[in-house]
Amino acid sequence: MIDPSEGPVALTRQLCDIPSVSGDERAIADAVERLLAERAPHLSVHRDGDTIVARTELGRARRVAIAGHLDTVPINDNLPVRDIVDDVSGEAMIWGRGTVDMKAGVAVQLALAVELAEPAVDVTWIWYDHEEVSSALSGLGRAMRNAPELFEADFAILGEPTNGRIEGGCNGTLRARVHYAGKRAHSARAWMGVNAIHRAGAALSKLAAFEPARIVVDGLEYREGLNAVRIDGGVAGNVIPDDCSIEVNYRFAPSRTPEEAADVVRVFFDDADSVEIVDSAAGARPGLDAPLAQGFAAAVGGDPTAKLGWTDVSRFSALGIPAVNFGPGDPLLAHADDERVPVAQIDAGYAGLRAWLERGA
Amino acid sequence: MIDPSEGPVALTRQLCDIPSVSGDERAIADAVERLLAERAPHLSVHRDGDTIVARTELGRARRVAIAGHLDTVPINDNLPVRDIVDDVSGEAMIWGRGTVDMKAGVAVQLALAVELAEPAVDVTWIWYDHEEVSSALSGLGRAMRNAPELFEADFAILGEPTNGRIEGGCNGTLRARVHYAGKRAHSARAWMGVNAIHRAGAALSKLAAFEPARIVVDGLEYREGLNAVRIDGGVAGNVIPDDCSIEVNYRFAPSRTPEEAADVVRVFFDDADSVEIVDSAAGARPGLDAPLAQGFAAAVGGDPTAKLGWTDVSRFSALGIPAVNFGPGDPLLAHADDERVPVAQIDAGYAGLRAWLERGA
Repeated sequence: MIDPSEGPVALTRQLCDIPSVSGDERAIADAVERLLAERAPHLSVHRDGDTIVARTELGRARRVAIAGHLDTVPINDNLPVRDIVDDVSGEAMIWGRGTVDMKAGVAVQLALAVELAEPAVDVTWIWYDHEEVSSALSGLGRAMRNAPELFEADFAILGEPTNGRIEGGCNGTLRARVHYAGKRAHSARAWMGVNAIHRAGAALSKLAAFEPARIVVDGLEYREGLNAVRIDGGVAGNVIPDDCSIEVNYRFAPSRTPEEAADVVRVFFDDADSVEIVDSAAGARPGLDAPLAQGFAAAVGGDPTAKLGWTDVSRFSALGIPAVNFGPGDPLLAHADDERVPVAQIDAGYAGLRAWLERGA
Repeated sequence: MIDPSEGPVALTRQLCDIPSVSGDERAIADAVERLLAERAPHLSVHRDGDTIVARTELGRARRVAIAGHLDTVPINDNLPVRDIVDDVSGEAMIWGRGTVDMKAGVAVQLALAVELAEPAVDVTWIWYDHEEVSSALSGLGRAMRNAPELFEADFAILGEPTNGRIEGGCNGTLRARVHYAGKRAHSARAWMGVNAIHRAGAALSKLAAFEPARIVVDGLEYREGLNAVRIDGGVAGNVIPDDCSIEVNYRFAPSRTPEEAADVVRVFFDDADSVEIVDSAAGARPGLDAPLAQGFAAAVGGDPTAKLGWTDVSRFSALGIPAVNFGPGDPLLAHADDERVPVAQIDAGYAGLRAWLERGA
């Protein structure tokens, strides 16, 4: 059983200790649903698989969606969680799988969902399954397709780890396979062939020298990245290779569409024989010019920055809802085996979000 | 049964039609051994596995080793052989597996071994197994280790296809694996890592621009080659790769030792984290300044050129025996599914070798 009455830090420990690797979220979703049924009669609760949507229906002028995923990456001898003191900073921490990504964020949200029967804005609380796996499996994406009306909102907050600061929007991401062709020949007579691996060298040198753009969108700076992530070529130890392919990953500012990003990649590799777009996902503009976003930023303090990794804010962005990331924990520790979250960030996140929801934006 | 009495062209057809893919040479070796026992009492015959060494013991002042391999690469719907007329040249040809590499050469040798009871030099005829596979399996190498005294000679002729011209010595070959290291990072924050694939770009560009040397050894020009033959790197589609390795093949002139060749490769890739020599095989100097070699060249005519691919002449060279390649067929058709040898080259090779062996060098 989970119980928010001892506060969000204790609730973080409880949520972490319910194993919920992607595909195995039923137990934690059941616990959340039961808690809401018993302790949050002010919420109307909907369930889609292991995704739970719980809404206030107060008739407020504005509505905010606040979301977090329930799943984690695989456990690696790092459950149950432990209380530790960080060697370097001396901070009290909770150590273990899910502490950063993102049970602490879910705990802050779930405690407030139960406690705040009459927030100043209507709130749609969302906890969902299958975030840490292929985008096609996403519980948030599925629930949005099945009942889009449940997700209408003026602003969205996603509890992904941001060290308790606001990180707006996110970069888009695109993968492409870049092919260089050649002509086979025996390597004793290399001049009768064309070496495809050698042909790929110019593109790699260009990548090594390339300075990706830093693009300001709605006041936040997005740092792009263009990288070879895989390379493969060759036939045999005595054959001039006739094929070499480079897989590249382009992280692009949310001011570009995926189509525009694909054009950037095609132009960059204009010496290739083909550029095949493998997959792509749009970024999300930070939307910090929206009044609700500005009020939220003022309430929680600190200078908002750009989110660099792709997150589910882009699913809200695709529905026309400005969205930011805001959660406890260092995003660089997400998925790390020594994942750990400072207790103080959980309390601060809880206090900031509570103040804003009570006072209204 | 094989029967050289109808000449080397008919014998070529007979030898080709005994399937003898590497590892399956017993039938052809048995046929050769039986023929020699019945028709060549002037030879002393030794067998080691499927390698046969047949020597005249005439007490001549000089001895010549004449060798050819009995095996072929796999059959691919190209046996039995057929007589064809070449579309372009109008030449009469024998088409099928082994015609070029190197049953025609073996047929010329075997016919002369039976016919010439009293050549002007002593001759050591050698037909061996396992040439088309790993060097460690070579029947010639094995027989040389088991009974080195059988292989002593002043000059050696290997019947590999050379279009009926003398191709002297051979290039050496060396394979190396060149490693570039990096540092992993999430590709959304590429600047926190070091991209090993990007680091390999400069080496590939250098390879693409590199003009390998042409080196004159004993009067013949050897064209070197330095090529990437395989490349491999990458971890996942969203990870900056921490490793990239390039496999390179260096074909080096016989004036360099394998150790010197390894140094050339290490200096070329001086920006790599490591250069691992995978294997190497020495080349062979052409030895055309030896009196026997000069006499042979004069007898068969044409301008000797350098052999570019590695061949077993280097095994003779390693024993201090000057060695050349001389056989019917276009080396560019070796291993091709439409392998085919001009009948005229078989007859000419037979006539040239016979004249030289009868007249003495």
